[in-house]
Amino acid sequence: MITSEEFLGRIRRMRDNIYMGGKLVKRDNPQLMPGLRVIMLTYDLATDPQYKGLFTAISHLDGREINRFTHIQQSAEDLMKKQDMTRIGIHRTGFCIQRCMGIDAMNALSVVTKEIDEEKGSEYHQRFIEYLKYWQNNDITAACAQTDVKGNRKLRPHQQADPDHYVRIVEKRKDGVIIRGAKNHITMASQADEIVVVPTRTLTREENDWAVAFAIPADAKGVKLVNRAVAPRAREHLTSPLSELGCSDCFVIFEDTFVPWERVFLAGETEFAGRMALMFALYHRHSYCGCKPGVTDIMMGFTALVAEYHGLEKAQHIQHKIAEMIGVGELIYAAGIAAAVKSEKSSSGTQIPNTIFANVGRRLAGENIYHEYNILADVSGGIPATLPFEEDFFAEETKDLLNKYIIHNEQIPAENQHRCYRAISDIICSSFGGWSQIVGVHGGGSPIMETIALLTNYDVNKKKEIAKYIAGIKD
Amino acid sequence: MITSEEFLGRIRRMRDNIYMGGKLVKRDNPQLMPGLRVIMLTYDLATDPQYKGLFTAISHLDGREINRFTHIQQSAEDLMKKQDMTRIGIHRTGFCIQRCMGIDAMNALSVVTKEIDEEKGSEYHQRFIEYLKYWQNNDITAACAQTDVKGNRKLRPHQQADPDHYVRIVEKRKDGVIIRGAKNHITMASQADEIVVVPTRTLTREENDWAVAFAIPADAKGVKLVNRAVAPRAREHLTSPLSELGCSDCFVIFEDTFVPWERVFLAGETEFAGRMALMFALYHRHSYCGCKPGVTDIMMGFTALVAEYHGLEKAQHIQHKIAEMIGVGELIYAAGIAAAVKSEKSSSGTQIPNTIFANVGRRLAGENIYHEYNILADVSGGIPATLPFEEDFFAEETKDLLNKYIIHNEQIPAENQHRCYRAISDIICSSFGGWSQIVGVHGGGSPIMETIALLTNYDVNKKKEIAKYIAGIKD
Amino acid sequence: MITSEEFLGRIRRMRDNIYMGGKLVKRDNPQLMPGLRVIMLTYDLATDPQYKGLFTAISHLDGREINRFTHIQQSAEDLMKKQDMTRIGIHRTGFCIQRCMGIDAMNALSVVTKEIDEEKGSEYHQRFIEYLKYWQNNDITAACAQTDVKGNRKLRPHQQADPDHYVRIVEKRKDGVIIRGAKNHITMASQADEIVVVPTRTLTREENDWAVAFAIPADAKGVKLVNRAVAPRAREHLTSPLSELGCSDCFVIFEDTFVPWERVFLAGETEFAGRMALMFALYHRHSYCGCKPGVTDIMMGFTALVAEYHGLEKAQHIQHKIAEMIGVGELIYAAGIAAAVKSEKSSSGTQIPNTIFANVGRRLAGENIYHEYNILADVSGGIPATLPFEEDFFAEETKDLLNKYIIHNEQIPAENQHRCYRAISDIICSSFGGWSQIVGVHGGGSPIMETIALLTNYDVNKKKEIAKYIAGIKD
Amino acid sequence: MITSEEFLGRIRRMRDNIYMGGKLVKRDNPQLMPGLRVIMLTYDLATDPQYKGLFTAISHLDGREINRFTHIQQSAEDLMKKQDMTRIGIHRTGFCIQRCMGIDAMNALSVVTKEIDEEKGSEYHQRFIEYLKYWQNNDITAACAQTDVKGNRKLRPHQQADPDHYVRIVEKRKDGVIIRGAKNHITMASQADEIVVVPTRTLTREENDWAVAFAIPADAKGVKLVNRAVAPRAREHLTSPLSELGCSDCFVIFEDTFVPWERVFLAGETEFAGRMALMFALYHRHSYCGCKPGVTDIMMGFTALVAEYHGLEKAQHIQHKIAEMIGVGELIYAAGIAAAVKSEKSSSGTQIPNTIFANVGRRLAGENIYHEYNILADVSGGIPATLPFEEDFFAEETKDLLNKYIIHNEQIPAENQHRCYRAISDIICSSFGGWSQIVGVHGGGSPIMETIALLTNYDVNKKKEIAKYIAGIKD
Repeated sequence: MITSEEFLGRIRRMRDNIYMGGKLVKRDNPQLMPGLRVIMLTYDLATDPQYKGLFTAISHLDGREINRFTHIQQSAEDLMKKQDMTRIGIHRTGFCIQRCMGIDAMNALSVVTKEIDEEKGSEYHQRFIEYLKYWQNNDITAACAQTDVKGNRKLRPHQQADPDHYVRIVEKRKDGVIIRGAKNHITMASQADEIVVVPTRTLTREENDWAVAFAIPADAKGVKLVNRAVAPRAREHLTSPLSELGCSDCFVIFEDTFVPWERVFLAGETEFAGRMALMFALYHRHSYCGCKPGVTDIMMGFTALVAEYHGLEKAQHIQHKIAEMIGVGELIYAAGIAAAVKSEKSSSGTQIPNTIFANVGRRLAGENIYHEYNILADVSGGIPATLPFEEDFFAEETKDLLNKYIIHNEQIPAENQHRCYRAISDIICSSFGGWSQIVGVHGGGSPIMETIALLTNYDVNKKKEIAKYIAGIKD
Repeated sequence: MITSEEFLGRIRRMRDNIYMGGKLVKRDNPQLMPGLRVIMLTYDLATDPQYKGLFTAISHLDGREINRFTHIQQSAEDLMKKQDMTRIGIHRTGFCIQRCMGIDAMNALSVVTKEIDEEKGSEYHQRFIEYLKYWQNNDITAACAQTDVKGNRKLRPHQQADPDHYVRIVEKRKDGVIIRGAKNHITMASQADEIVVVPTRTLTREENDWAVAFAIPADAKGVKLVNRAVAPRAREHLTSPLSELGCSDCFVIFEDTFVPWERVFLAGETEFAGRMALMFALYHRHSYCGCKPGVTDIMMGFTALVAEYHGLEKAQHIQHKIAEMIGVGELIYAAGIAAAVKSEKSSSGTQIPNTIFANVGRRLAGENIYHEYNILADVSGGIPATLPFEEDFFAEETKDLLNKYIIHNEQIPAENQHRCYRAISDIICSSFGGWSQIVGVHGGGSPIMETIALLTNYDVNKKKEIAKYIAGIKD
Repeated sequence: MITSEEFLGRIRRMRDNIYMGGKLVKRDNPQLMPGLRVIMLTYDLATDPQYKGLFTAISHLDGREINRFTHIQQSAEDLMKKQDMTRIGIHRTGFCIQRCMGIDAMNALSVVTKEIDEEKGSEYHQRFIEYLKYWQNNDITAACAQTDVKGNRKLRPHQQADPDHYVRIVEKRKDGVIIRGAKNHITMASQADEIVVVPTRTLTREENDWAVAFAIPADAKGVKLVNRAVAPRAREHLTSPLSELGCSDCFVIFEDTFVPWERVFLAGETEFAGRMALMFALYHRHSYCGCKPGVTDIMMGFTALVAEYHGLEKAQHIQHKIAEMIGVGELIYAAGIAAAVKSEKSSSGTQIPNTIFANVGRRLAGENIYHEYNILADVSGGIPATLPFEEDFFAEETKDLLNKYIIHNEQIPAENQHRCYRAISDIICSSFGGWSQIVGVHGGGSPIMETIALLTNYDVNKKKEIAKYIAGIKD
Repeated sequence: MITSEEFLGRIRRMRDNIYMGGKLVKRDNPQLMPGLRVIMLTYDLATDPQYKGLFTAISHLDGREINRFTHIQQSAEDLMKKQDMTRIGIHRTGFCIQRCMGIDAMNALSVVTKEIDEEKGSEYHQRFIEYLKYWQNNDITAACAQTDVKGNRKLRPHQQADPDHYVRIVEKRKDGVIIRGAKNHITMASQADEIVVVPTRTLTREENDWAVAFAIPADAKGVKLVNRAVAPRAREHLTSPLSELGCSDCFVIFEDTFVPWERVFLAGETEFAGRMALMFALYHRHSYCGCKPGVTDIMMGFTALVAEYHGLEKAQHIQHKIAEMIGVGELIYAAGIAAAVKSEKSSSGTQIPNTIFANVGRRLAGENIYHEYNILADVSGGIPATLPFEEDFFAEETKDLLNKYIIHNEQIPAENQHRCYRAISDIICSSFGGWSQIVGVHGGGSPIMETIALLTNYDVNKKKEIAKYIAGIKD
């Protein structure tokens, strides 16, 4: 395990390939630092003794202690610990802990590379294991690049007018493959050491070129990252954990990029593309079963806090809204636990969470995120939308007036009430808040994707048989 | 374990104390038989080899195999098995398996009698153990009588104009206690060997007389059961499992009824009344986490079946409704699993499910029951409401016409389509269906009771602390 | 206008053609009387001076006062009055006033017969006017038979294996047409003088035989009605308006039935079949905008009443549920008003309600009916499901005990509390209640039918143009 | 009527009293111009011939044509026209048209000043008429300042530790009154000529000092505006109507501000404070019944547009979401129409919308705003959250790549697709979007305020009487 400063140093040494606002920017650009601070936190928590065993794990490769964000799930207990780590992590950031997607992709690769080898006699799994050693030895942070830009959504990859609309192999060489295309919505790619690329969907026989998975340094030659950074409005006087953190999403563009064979984990085996896509989604949806309860904890905490400051904490309708949030958060968390309890060991030894439970959990999260914002807005009143800017609370002509009139509870310092409103404003009334809502719907797969996964995997026919029995229908 | 026929014989030998429709009726009255058949099924399933270990358990008292409906939970695994038993049982009845409430009450007594003894030096727990032996030896079926009639709901028990509005001890004698009052909504009391009585709420110091728990034979002297039976409309030609089964609820009235001390498990220790009430509720809410998924399975099965018969199974909006049902059923089930995983061992050795998860699960069930009926009604169309009576399908003048016009799918025999509609009509368009809806809301405690339990037990302050940390508020 | 007794006499003189429970039954059979009493009420209210101008209207044909249930809408005001009549009618029955469907069909015929004549030079409209005179002169009650049995729902009428699965003309004769087929879900056909038959869907060119509309006496030769009656459980002691009323639905079967030309209003003009189907649906959905608010008034009234009896009327969560009901009822009512305000005059002079508003109103009704039952169940507690039968409240052994324990409010006579619970039990825990729920979803067209109507009629493109303007997109 | 340029000139001549970001700023500061452009639009539309009679009205004072934003409602038709004007206005701005609040306050004053005079013999109404002439002659734009900062919400105004927490009269002088306190959440106060101040709640006898209503120039001596401006991110290349517009909210602070008697409309008559507060709320909620349907039109338009660009317009689940939006928008609109149809004339001649319908309409709006954002987010996918900044689409290194990969529909220019995403990003993923959500919940009164208004004004007892009649309960 490395320290957060070591990580930052490593990031700073990377090649400049991030574009933002029309310019090539440094990785530690002020707009990117908030996002980097979140990743740094994942290093700090792993070295914090109180989180030993939670943010750390024991490598199944060599028995050494590693950051749990580099661990391959070995048991139901591992899956539950990952949920807990994620939930606790969110308590420290106030939102997305970001580093889960890379390890979720690694777990998917660990399962599917083995399965390919078993059927094809290939050697992907051994490559993967070597790459994993590199990960664990260097405490790597990676983004997972899954979602292609997709072009015309009614057409399959090979039917697109522009074949690059799904990432593809344009050439296979002796030493590796040449990649072209773009992946979109790639969270924290600009803050990561590496990018792990996996397919976005099932593929048909004609689509060998699009059946590709690989890992690549985020600053590799031929990789361009067009970045959109988001963070709460910077503060001058009233900094807080939330006000220092942020996130980024990238368009990751491959312009005939070379990837050596030892980093390629799928190259043409179309029948495994869908399996790999779904396996990543499954691990990531299970992550959400720890993540979203953490987000609900934050939303609930602010709902209860602002109600307390307004003297309305005991109001029945507010209490009932809080109880609703408890229901959403804990049902999702329970779904994650059930997915762990009903998990199964794959041929690779990696533990796979149960599909049904991971999907009902993730879907509930996606369906309720806007509702939770609604509750917090409801209980806060209009103040998060109309709160004067921070500077006015410190300017001569206005500070005393604002501090006089902001007070709703004489027992609580004006600054605390101000801080509470400002944090809520950052959460529900900012571009950062809008980003969080949309990520809450779509990250890890939108509710409709989970609905599709459920309908594909659930045995509805068995329920029809039960109905027939009850009704006395014999076929 | 005994057979269902032995059980029925035992029931038939009981004293007549059931009133229905203005008359004193036999226990095997035709209106009561459908309910008795459900109980009989719980004996049959326990002796069916395929359900060994599921409908049976190993007694922790003597290591013998017993019906799981007489088992005291010893582990998280026991709790999960009970969920599964309940879900499977419902697949055989189409609705409430009924026998869970007695054993839920027994589990509550096992925990709380021990706790009283620990604090008071009493000997309730030993009495309980003796009574439990009687249960396991005789494979006893019991109702649990918890809900008092309550009189004026804004007043406490001791403030009521009529003190009998909560069941109470009117006299303590050397050999036992004299009980007066009534319990309402007591499901299957008329089909049970015994009635286990527990308090319905927390009590204050003035309310010693109302702090009472005991067990009594259902036909004991001084006990009157005023019964309301409910079942699908009886069939002449097209009988089916569903059409043969039913349920009953009783007003259980104690008219100065004597209960010997060896069957008394609480008698004046007011500070344990609430604990006992909540402990029964907790076990019963955990039962719902297996029960309700079973009910959802039935509702989903019929939704899918009628859609298939109408050729609409692939319609997206129907698929999405089925996916909604999957979500509800499996989230509740997951909550039950989480309640087991996070369960704790009490001082008595009995395993107690986690309160938060049991309550979020049960509440989700209660909140969605009407919605599931809505879905099935939606997909079925009007036919469950307008289906001609069974006899018309067999009468000379109408049978050919009805069988001609009932057909929506030429591949399926008319009788099967007819059976499907008739079963759905029984489920959603009958007094039995209305009963099921209301039981689905209130049985085991209404959603608002779970909301109260959640608000009482959940650490909202911890969430406020997280919010404060995020916002940079130091107290 | 005639009296209710005259109506009943007329009904009693009709030919026996109603089958129920496997037998041919009289029209005033005890199971049918509850439904007849609802129709009789529509005659009584029209002769009650306090409802003059509401339950009566002025015929546009001859200026005479007529029952509004025989009136053709002439203005927006007429449409609003019809809403009000329906709502008030429901306040007297507690549920469906039933007689609206016939006049809704007549209004549809009045519009479309004129339109056919205009395009085809036919003389349907004059026939219709003559038939309308017969209606108004005789104060006729009619059912509307629209819904065909439909067979395989994925096939069109002319593609069915059995062509009779949609009602059709099997022969055109000089003096009339011969009809074969069946209509299903035909409410109150067994309580009506006449049946007005209209198409159920749009038709294609090949489907001339299925393009048929006509009116026929309900007891005509060749018409069989297979009836399902529904009513609250009959009472012996505590009769009340609700307990005396009921409803029926029929399978209306035409076995090569002759209809003379003067009663035929569509016979082969396929291009008008859809128009006629939708026009009836439109009038009927507008009726729902008066009907459903009336039903909500009843549900809300009982919710408030039982809350009062339980001393919980001021509880915030109950108040909020009542406020929800206000919202549902009054939004539907407002939609009806808006449909009237935005109504248009057809070429026949008949006023047509606005499609968008009638459909958003009806859909809201259909989407919320189960939710309102849920609210009433929620607030009532379990008692509607477990209330002992009426006789037990009057039997020697149990009456005093039940009257003692049923009391929740000492200020209110036990009988009133008992009556309240029994009425709620009839409404939410009976086959009658199940029927009401399903009718509430499907009567007048299920929510999905309104969704289709909205998507067909709403100018979404105009909204896209607005979006483009806002976004600066020029095509 | 004046032109928008005349308005802007007038605004520019005002005294500087706006504070923002810690500084005293000009009224045409770049951050304030977007909001001013919205107000300017209300002048432009009134002089646009195609909107004559919609954005203009005829003054009831002198028969001259005036901007409808300065008109006192004289009829149900006026109320409906105002709804339509608001809805059309929103089609031009994409969100809040802002100018309605001033005229809503004026209508409230017109009603209540008359009522005070009738009871008190005062002369407020004549003052109001004189002030109205000034308005209409000068085509005045005003903010309405209603919401006090409120301090401790559980205490009444006169119980506050700081009496200034509700705006109050600190001195009555011969020539006028001296005002102290602050109003919060005052939209567009920094863009208005005038501020009309009304009470925020009912008052008790002890609260004479807080019973005050008046009008004041927005730049009057003793008035400080602390402003928070909000607008979509400014664009360099792809400007559009939406990207040019914005809004502001102010803390309006009165520091012993003098108001002459001729501009005072309430000064101590506590019994009319609540009436005035509710009357403004009522007019403003009726405005929402035109406003919110306009917002829904925008949201629906973008939902349909992005679905079209993605080739998914015909997908059933997207069609159903659009149909849901139709339902929400048109039910609210219908509620406004019903509020107009059931409106009543006050003693002043001013037409008052119906309370029940205005409140059920406004509440539906507030309850659904987050849901509509959810739908648009759902259908758009993640792109509004991850779209690279505008500049990257025009920078050499990235523009071709981004334009290549942004394409989802070859028939549509890349720029149009880009513009569509960027507009949606502005709407749902920006501080402006967060502001719009919160305003959508709280503007004009939160849903819970409408619930309270409904419970206060609705005759629930009448519904209980109906229930009693149905149940046969006689008191």
